[in-house]
Amino acid sequence: MFDLAKVSAAFKDAGIEFSAGAKQLFDASLDHARYSFSPDIVAYAKSGADVSGVLKVAGRLEIPVTVRGSGTGCSGGCVPISGGIVLDLSGLNFIEIDPLSRIAHVGAGAVTAEVDKAANAFGLFYAPDPSSHKYSSIGGNIACNAGGLRALKYGCTRDNLAALAVCLPDGETIKCGLPLRKFSAGPNLRDLFVGSEGTLGVVTEAWLRLLPMPKARRAALSFFDGDEEGFRGVEKILLSDITPCILEFMDSETLECVRIRNPQMGIGKGKSALLAEFDGTESEADEGARRFVEILSEYGARMAKTEAEAEEFWQVRRKSSQAMYELGDSKVSQDIVLPFGAVCDFFRFFKALGRELHLATPVFGHAGDGNYHIHFMYFADEKNARERALEGMDKAIVKTVELGGAVSGEHGIGFLKSKYMPAQHSGRQISLMREIKKLFDPKNILNPGKVYSVTDISGLHPLRGVKLPWD
Amino acid sequence: MFDLAKVSAAFKDAGIEFSAGAKQLFDASLDHARYSFSPDIVAYAKSGADVSGVLKVAGRLEIPVTVRGSGTGCSGGCVPISGGIVLDLSGLNFIEIDPLSRIAHVGAGAVTAEVDKAANAFGLFYAPDPSSHKYSSIGGNIACNAGGLRALKYGCTRDNLAALAVCLPDGETIKCGLPLRKFSAGPNLRDLFVGSEGTLGVVTEAWLRLLPMPKARRAALSFFDGDEEGFRGVEKILLSDITPCILEFMDSETLECVRIRNPQMGIGKGKSALLAEFDGTESEADEGARRFVEILSEYGARMAKTEAEAEEFWQVRRKSSQAMYELGDSKVSQDIVLPFGAVCDFFRFFKALGRELHLATPVFGHAGDGNYHIHFMYFADEKNARERALEGMDKAIVKTVELGGAVSGEHGIGFLKSKYMPAQHSGRQISLMREIKKLFDPKNILNPGKVYSVTDISGLHPLRGVKLPWD
Repeated sequence: MFDLAKVSAAFKDAGIEFSAGAKQLFDASLDHARYSFSPDIVAYAKSGADVSGVLKVAGRLEIPVTVRGSGTGCSGGCVPISGGIVLDLSGLNFIEIDPLSRIAHVGAGAVTAEVDKAANAFGLFYAPDPSSHKYSSIGGNIACNAGGLRALKYGCTRDNLAALAVCLPDGETIKCGLPLRKFSAGPNLRDLFVGSEGTLGVVTEAWLRLLPMPKARRAALSFFDGDEEGFRGVEKILLSDITPCILEFMDSETLECVRIRNPQMGIGKGKSALLAEFDGTESEADEGARRFVEILSEYGARMAKTEAEAEEFWQVRRKSSQAMYELGDSKVSQDIVLPFGAVCDFFRFFKALGRELHLATPVFGHAGDGNYHIHFMYFADEKNARERALEGMDKAIVKTVELGGAVSGEHGIGFLKSKYMPAQHSGRQISLMREIKKLFDPKNILNPGKVYSVTDISGLHPLRGVKLPWD
Repeated sequence: MFDLAKVSAAFKDAGIEFSAGAKQLFDASLDHARYSFSPDIVAYAKSGADVSGVLKVAGRLEIPVTVRGSGTGCSGGCVPISGGIVLDLSGLNFIEIDPLSRIAHVGAGAVTAEVDKAANAFGLFYAPDPSSHKYSSIGGNIACNAGGLRALKYGCTRDNLAALAVCLPDGETIKCGLPLRKFSAGPNLRDLFVGSEGTLGVVTEAWLRLLPMPKARRAALSFFDGDEEGFRGVEKILLSDITPCILEFMDSETLECVRIRNPQMGIGKGKSALLAEFDGTESEADEGARRFVEILSEYGARMAKTEAEAEEFWQVRRKSSQAMYELGDSKVSQDIVLPFGAVCDFFRFFKALGRELHLATPVFGHAGDGNYHIHFMYFADEKNARERALEGMDKAIVKTVELGGAVSGEHGIGFLKSKYMPAQHSGRQISLMREIKKLFDPKNILNPGKVYSVTDISGLHPLRGVKLPWD
């Protein structure tokens, strides 16, 4: 049993800010997926020492600790399903730029877009751009190895990381890696923490790699007569000599929704769409977009002539996520990754599944990475609709793995996807993961019930219709 | 005691090719560093099944297994210091290119340059280019997270890797990661094997990321009046808006050797030199080289106007490694990484150390990564010269770590650097590494005595003056 008086006293002794107020507990109870589980107390860390203090208390009293950044996650990674302490790192948000080393040294709570902005002042930028980047924290990005639109050219969080400071469950902090461009000195502990969603240690600081800002960007857009034509367009780009920094696909269901919701946009004919962006020097960006138009000339691809036209192109993509609520007031969605050769097969399967279950199935995503956001849309008041959507998603995920794909590209496992781990990994792999977990966290206080354990409480747990800052 | 008859019989039963001939044992006894320790038997694997077979025999009989690719390593990683079995993977060298996914699927024994060549046929390339790339194997590259000249723009081996097949010490093979562009499904086992030098499992296959081949390259070269002026030149480039794909520094001792050995090259005046290469589209490569010349105009930087001139520029760098034998017939060298802000401090310390020890101290390296190859040159017949060089290197490494640097950027630890691990990592980190080692390899059969253990047998162990294929 959680003893609030005891924990509060221990936090007070250690000089740690905390709250057990109803609003604070509710705010710390959910993420973007809106499954709410209340913690017993929320601790607010402003420093590595605070983090260490919280973990020492938690270890001594054997209380679960779930780490939280901004709560923009989609898989329940920061949701305290076992109650106990939520350790909020949003106040640990310093940002320091070293332009000579092209490194940003940041607190885990620093907001992704703020890091980028701070780098911009030195002519540098931070490449990973998850769609939540205006709110998401770097610690959260590291927890699930966040990707984003530009991952095609610049990689995911892991690829842009130099070093980490990590507080282990017993309160001792280690530094993994160094803020250098090369490092080859024994087994790599750093990358164990990337994607492990706060189950092995608490990342308190990160040293991120920065790049010189591109001088130019060019957008190009192509429409296709159908979804499969669109995938063929993607293949043509991948088989060519160009590397867009962004390549986003919207299927016919998605595009139709954007059209209906935004008649003023005057989206021409065409069923599916492919948006590309090229960056670099002026000539490099120009050349990329020009080649894109050339390669997809039979589909009438166009290059944006002006900034305003580029923004028009982008609006098609930006409106996608909200527009699909034309097809239902609720959704079950996942971010799968498919081998490029299997995209059409999966798509046919997924659409047939939607017809069978009487659910709409809009798909869009980062086509250049094979990372698609797939959706079952439903109306919450329709009988068994959510059940059907959940059941359909299970089938879609099984198919994804059968085709050589991944159950998550950038959202992580949390607890909403932990049931898919045995499909994704062999028994031996999962047992190795669990042994590593045990080695780092012998008392199992860090984010228990996630990732390694099949915790299928997603089924009919009520969703909270709360409005979050990024909605 | 190693029982040759027993092991031979077990290998024969399992259909594994092997030899205990004197030449085969000697060939498998050393790497580029030339410390020779004989194994008792060499097994030649042509498939994952062979690897599994060898590990099962080794596990049952508790015999050490040291994995070997091409033997180009510099830290003794593949040297069987504990005897037993050398597992030679050079025959496991298939290469398959998937141009749509931009992935090369290769056996661990595949030669780095051969992978690149196979990719080139599809208009793609494999970016990591350790200087041994014409001989080194991908498995060896993964073992020490090999870098190379182009790492500045394209990263090291880890950054260009999608997935691995790894045979665990008990003979079971797991697949870590998938040949996809994004993957976020639980703790990342893949990256534990990168840089762990065959101590946790045997990498049998790798899926490598490929990139479209650049259409153009431009070389540019600048000379400086002294070494520190050269470092200031490097800083100017790093603080600018350009990213060369290669940025190589040669200090005044190195350059003087190149000049003496190659009078026909007509290297003009200037004490240190900085060579840069820019790649991409024609205009991009041009623009980079042009900006380089502009930024370093006060030093008289030049851009190569023709292919022939580019090759002349490159010759200055290519001759460096051999030319320094002007200063001695033997060397003690390391590949340290320095924070960009600490390069001058280190350099002054290192040169003073050389004067104190009466040893020449040529330095060159990948300046854009802060990854310098530092050398003490000596004559083998000079009394105590090797001892002085080894003593000096210990001091240089301590200084490197004090300044925030790394004891290895791309060569790994092997056994020659294991004594530096306690300087580089905290006790807690090393104990975590050891626990992970124990978890994966409870019988400690894989590459024992390396990385985790301070095995200082480098001291006065005789060096073998053998000519290796890449000499």
